[in-house]
Amino acid sequence: MQIKLTTPLDMHLHLRDEDMLKIVAPLSAKSFSGAIIMPNLVPPVSTKDEVIAYRQRIIEAIGDNKIELYMTLFFKSTYTYEFLQSIKDEITAIKLYPAGITTNSEGGVSGFDIDELKETLNAMSKLNIPLCIHGETNGFVMDREAQFVPIYEKLALAFPDLKIIMEHITTKESVEALDKFDNLYATITIHHLLITLDDVAGGMLAPHLFCKPIAKRPEDRDALQKVALSAHPKVMFGSDSAPHPQDAKESSHCSAGVFTAPIALQLLARLFETNGSSFDNLQKFVSDNAKNIYGVNPKEQTITLSKTPFTVPQNYGKVVPMYAGETISWSLVD
Amino acid sequence: MQIKLTTPLDMHLHLRDEDMLKIVAPLSAKSFSGAIIMPNLVPPVSTKDEVIAYRQRIIEAIGDNKIELYMTLFFKSTYTYEFLQSIKDEITAIKLYPAGITTNSEGGVSGFDIDELKETLNAMSKLNIPLCIHGETNGFVMDREAQFVPIYEKLALAFPDLKIIMEHITTKESVEALDKFDNLYATITIHHLLITLDDVAGGMLAPHLFCKPIAKRPEDRDALQKVALSAHPKVMFGSDSAPHPQDAKESSHCSAGVFTAPIALQLLARLFETNGSSFDNLQKFVSDNAKNIYGVNPKEQTITLSKTPFTVPQNYGKVVPMYAGETISWSLVD
Repeated sequence: MQIKLTTPLDMHLHLRDEDMLKIVAPLSAKSFSGAIIMPNLVPPVSTKDEVIAYRQRIIEAIGDNKIELYMTLFFKSTYTYEFLQSIKDEITAIKLYPAGITTNSEGGVSGFDIDELKETLNAMSKLNIPLCIHGETNGFVMDREAQFVPIYEKLALAFPDLKIIMEHITTKESVEALDKFDNLYATITIHHLLITLDDVAGGMLAPHLFCKPIAKRPEDRDALQKVALSAHPKVMFGSDSAPHPQDAKESSHCSAGVFTAPIALQLLARLFETNGSSFDNLQKFVSDNAKNIYGVNPKEQTITLSKTPFTVPQNYGKVVPMYAGETISWSLVD
Repeated sequence: MQIKLTTPLDMHLHLRDEDMLKIVAPLSAKSFSGAIIMPNLVPPVSTKDEVIAYRQRIIEAIGDNKIELYMTLFFKSTYTYEFLQSIKDEITAIKLYPAGITTNSEGGVSGFDIDELKETLNAMSKLNIPLCIHGETNGFVMDREAQFVPIYEKLALAFPDLKIIMEHITTKESVEALDKFDNLYATITIHHLLITLDDVAGGMLAPHLFCKPIAKRPEDRDALQKVALSAHPKVMFGSDSAPHPQDAKESSHCSAGVFTAPIALQLLARLFETNGSSFDNLQKFVSDNAKNIYGVNPKEQTITLSKTPFTVPQNYGKVVPMYAGETISWSLVD
């Protein structure tokens, strides 16, 4: 059995920089036709020159133009209309991190005061630049995302013309928020569709499944699966594939991030098949919905998957992928 | 400032065997005057000869008789009255593990059918042998202990003359169960008095704080602190100090267990001091309550602690302790 996906898109991707970029960027380009590139480098990508230079480094790392690069800027409340207008053609979205919430987010937003944010967010609304948010408070780890939902709702109400993407949602509360406001959308990762906290910390502790937001409860995963498998028009696939060197993961202080880019499509094919969902829905979840939500129009490509066992490599360079050494029932066809 | 503790007892201790035993047993003997020794070796300690031989290996590892060894047997529902009578003088308690719930527990109990357990538990009641239980179901990791509370209650009702120790409790539900049944008691670890899941997985993932039961929510920790700091007469200190080699902790599949034996008293002194609880209560929590509950009478010893900074070693042999490299405000006085 084979399936063909048209122009699969990864709407939340970390490519890092330097050596790591050279390892991971070609792997994403092999599976995906386009990707939203996260800006949380050190220092974060926050000027036009930095966006252009980062895009160029990614293209060089991949070696061709096979993947459409949707660049993002690291949100700052000091961005003016004039600045955003000048950079609009170089970026697809702006990513907002609460300060200190995950890898390289120290310069993010503290508090969500509408008055402080309104100049920038009104400018983004006028210029039709979507706002991507890592929605977690600094509360108890299992509650952080649910506690952030009222902030999503406050922003959605205050800026009704702003497209707000709730990134890598993990809870039923976020799923429920989707249908309350026209301008709230979401990305969902493959790992949050597959695992719960039991997989991270219920047996042996599994650092390669540790990410932010942390995987939640079975009922949360069920809620995510429901909207993904039914291709709810406001959700789209975003891997949040986030590579770290093996020695930063298998350590006394393990970094957050699951590396899934090279196995995401295979796992999605398996998930949609085993749950009896149609591959038409997979097509929507992994491409069409994102095109509609973002209004992007990437060059059409076809990626073929075959129901042939694929054993996940133990590592890609210095990075250990999710499910290293395990066999998945679907393969990419080169 | 100095405090003197009389005959501190660790009522839940893993000493392992062979090389590991030689590293960790002398460290417990330095802090504690007596300890309940867990039987989950491979194979588990389940015969009189095994108990006697294990005790002898521990004594050899320590090199003297400074610590009273309260040996335990690995619970099996096949133990008869006659067998238990024959072994009674060699053991202080019997430890029950649900099958597969933690390190080396594969031969434990599946299901908790009163009819299946009653011969052994009635015999234990008659012989006044306490039953220590690792109380977790195989449910979702954050719910396992709370889900087990009805099983504790069922056993407490069915065997009213059996002393049942809820080991290393981590939840407010277990704390509440303490006061419902005369024959339910509990041990509490130092790490569960100090940390929550936030410390394990809320920042960087911390394998050296990963244990079973996993650390729970802030309100659970509050409930544990309340009964420990007030020296509730049915709770006693049990470290559950559980060493693993560093390479088994800092790995892709990290073993469960926090190694606290050499720092437990220092952390307890700091906890009771910083919370404004009396050192009289610490004395009860770490010794008197256990003597009353178990009816044991260890040789009296005095351990002195001084309010002098102590930097926790990065490792004890191949084992990394909790808070490695951090400084605690209290020290043991040799």
